[in-house]
Amino acid sequence: MATIPTPTTQLPSRAPVIVIAPDSFKGSLCAADVARAIATGIRRTLPHAELRLRPMADGGEGTLDAIVAGGEDSSRGAIGDASRMVMLRVRGASGAPVDARAAILADGTGIVEVAQVVGLTDPIGTATDVAKRDTRGVGEMIVKLLDSGCRRLMVGLGGSSTNDGGAGLLAALGVRFVDAEGSLLAPDPEHLAGLRAMDITRLDARLAACTVTVMSDVNNPLTGARGATAIFGPQKGVRAEAVDALDATLAQYAAVACVAFQRDVRDAPGAGAAGGLGYALQLLGATLRSGAEVVADVVGLDAALSGAAWAITGEGRSDAQTTMRKAPWIVAERARARAIPVSLLSGGLDSAALPALNRQFAGCFALAPGPASLPDAIAHASAWLADRADALTRLRFG
Amino acid sequence: MATIPTPTTQLPSRAPVIVIAPDSFKGSLCAADVARAIATGIRRTLPHAELRLRPMADGGEGTLDAIVAGGEDSSRGAIGDASRMVMLRVRGASGAPVDARAAILADGTGIVEVAQVVGLTDPIGTATDVAKRDTRGVGEMIVKLLDSGCRRLMVGLGGSSTNDGGAGLLAALGVRFVDAEGSLLAPDPEHLAGLRAMDITRLDARLAACTVTVMSDVNNPLTGARGATAIFGPQKGVRAEAVDALDATLAQYAAVACVAFQRDVRDAPGAGAAGGLGYALQLLGATLRSGAEVVADVVGLDAALSGAAWAITGEGRSDAQTTMRKAPWIVAERARARAIPVSLLSGGLDSAALPALNRQFAGCFALAPGPASLPDAIAHASAWLADRADALTRLRFG
Repeated sequence: MATIPTPTTQLPSRAPVIVIAPDSFKGSLCAADVARAIATGIRRTLPHAELRLRPMADGGEGTLDAIVAGGEDSSRGAIGDASRMVMLRVRGASGAPVDARAAILADGTGIVEVAQVVGLTDPIGTATDVAKRDTRGVGEMIVKLLDSGCRRLMVGLGGSSTNDGGAGLLAALGVRFVDAEGSLLAPDPEHLAGLRAMDITRLDARLAACTVTVMSDVNNPLTGARGATAIFGPQKGVRAEAVDALDATLAQYAAVACVAFQRDVRDAPGAGAAGGLGYALQLLGATLRSGAEVVADVVGLDAALSGAAWAITGEGRSDAQTTMRKAPWIVAERARARAIPVSLLSGGLDSAALPALNRQFAGCFALAPGPASLPDAIAHASAWLADRADALTRLRFG
Repeated sequence: MATIPTPTTQLPSRAPVIVIAPDSFKGSLCAADVARAIATGIRRTLPHAELRLRPMADGGEGTLDAIVAGGEDSSRGAIGDASRMVMLRVRGASGAPVDARAAILADGTGIVEVAQVVGLTDPIGTATDVAKRDTRGVGEMIVKLLDSGCRRLMVGLGGSSTNDGGAGLLAALGVRFVDAEGSLLAPDPEHLAGLRAMDITRLDARLAACTVTVMSDVNNPLTGARGATAIFGPQKGVRAEAVDALDATLAQYAAVACVAFQRDVRDAPGAGAAGGLGYALQLLGATLRSGAEVVADVVGLDAALSGAAWAITGEGRSDAQTTMRKAPWIVAERARARAIPVSLLSGGLDSAALPALNRQFAGCFALAPGPASLPDAIAHASAWLADRADALTRLRFG
């Protein structure tokens, strides 16, 4: 048998700073667990490395988890202030009450993840026509956060089952919709078809003192060929023959809102996000930002990268979507701006996207140790993450 | 969209020397093709790197291919002298003629891969009882190589279907086996049960001037509980109840040989390799060496490693067997002796073996870009090797 030196003779005992900033592996692990599994692997090889864990998200599903989990440094444990998760009972997309999570940071910022309230996985929502679904629950959640004293809000779009142009949100915040006879209308597409005017005099006054950031990577306008209905309607159950009518309803709704708010954001990038929630929030003065950029700021990614020798990010699957400013992409941008190489650990790599990914990452790596099924990959994600991170560390520092 | 720097701004234009010395991926790619695929991937990231390709093998299947393919340097193309493959018609394990390959190096060394002559995949052999199979064809091949002028021979054991103690080989080289009545016996286990004496007076005299190296990583003795029959017989079709009788035949054969050759190598390490071929060859004065060590010497691995910054090796599957001095292990030993980190690229990694593998390799990596079937992995091996090698290079040098 060969003489087997101990790891310490092979690997230096220096203590490099390594930033671990992965997205969640959807259907398998939250971002904090992904980061911890990677840290476990790195420590096997570099037990003295300073590891800075910064769970990431892109404003969609997993954003609350990443932000509330917060950062963790091997040298000083959990970092930052105590964020807290709150559970709020609000109206789901189809009217039934849902207990939805939100987060309140120590500085009073409220974080809303739209999918928690009117998500695609809403069991009632999926059985109901999109014309009957609305976003009142999202507005109710914002009201509750305002009641709690929040004056900064960050609203993560993505994964909604609604296509109401955000009319439900406006309604919950005090806007009233009326038809040609002056009758009040419910804020869903079915009823909004008859919309003639909006009364915004009862709009929640606290919003004026509030900074709202919309987290979205969708740049589509509200209506038209690239609008919310045409592009995202079908995945919410809108039949092809129904697209035009729904789109016309949103166009009429936006024309009326234009008059009422004296502001036109129909073609603002992101107006078409989350079935037009992006439109309604921008109508209220919200600023649109890339979700991963916002999360990176909230978790303090830049500070963590200071002095780092290497960064690892990751996600459940990497493909051309990754290049559209998803969390790993933003981590890479910020790391590379500091000349820090950043590697990608992914549940699956789309070979066709590798040339584009390779320009951004110091190596893209998959989890599987060999031929394996997807259920196997999900079941072993944590162990495989540790094993692969160990291997990457040996290659990088060995 | 992010600004995407070109690779040259990310990666230095230095030209490190990288040694690529993989084993074959059995059932998929020969070692030279594995090395070329890895080189393709590295060149994407480091187009100016000096790549030294040294296909490896462990003395078993693929040894001839690796040695005849020989080394290739990116700076000067194919290296070394012209080895050539020869096709020789000899007797298969069950008597039918087979066209088997051998190699003759420019220095006159003849290379024999036993599995080419009496391999487990021999279609006739598999249908016949092991007691009727013998290794005469291996001896015939050696005679033909001696006829060609070879005076150095390297014989790769492994993958044989025979359990004749190498009696067939001895017979082909001139040894005669007789029973109690002085009648000549065929050199197979069935007939050798009646063996009483050996006549070695007609042994090919050229062997005395010949250096024979046996390539094997099997250390078992010829007979007994750890012997050829007990350990390797079952995988050659020996039924449990037949083990003792076959083992007794080999014990009697060895006792007779001891008298005839005035040499006892029954318990020499490797005597039990290839159904006792390791015994017969050592009886003739052959030296046993690790197959991968011999191949490493033949392909000039040490010289290639001189000045190298990194080495990559690989194999179709990595598990506890890998640590038993398989080709990647030997590559790692020699690289590490020069303080060169060596990484492993494998079709599949046995997670249980990773702790042992990690002590030897600067990172063990699998090929699959995500969940994939074995047929997929085999079909895409070349493309995946290039993609993974590219990623490893980016991580190491990025």
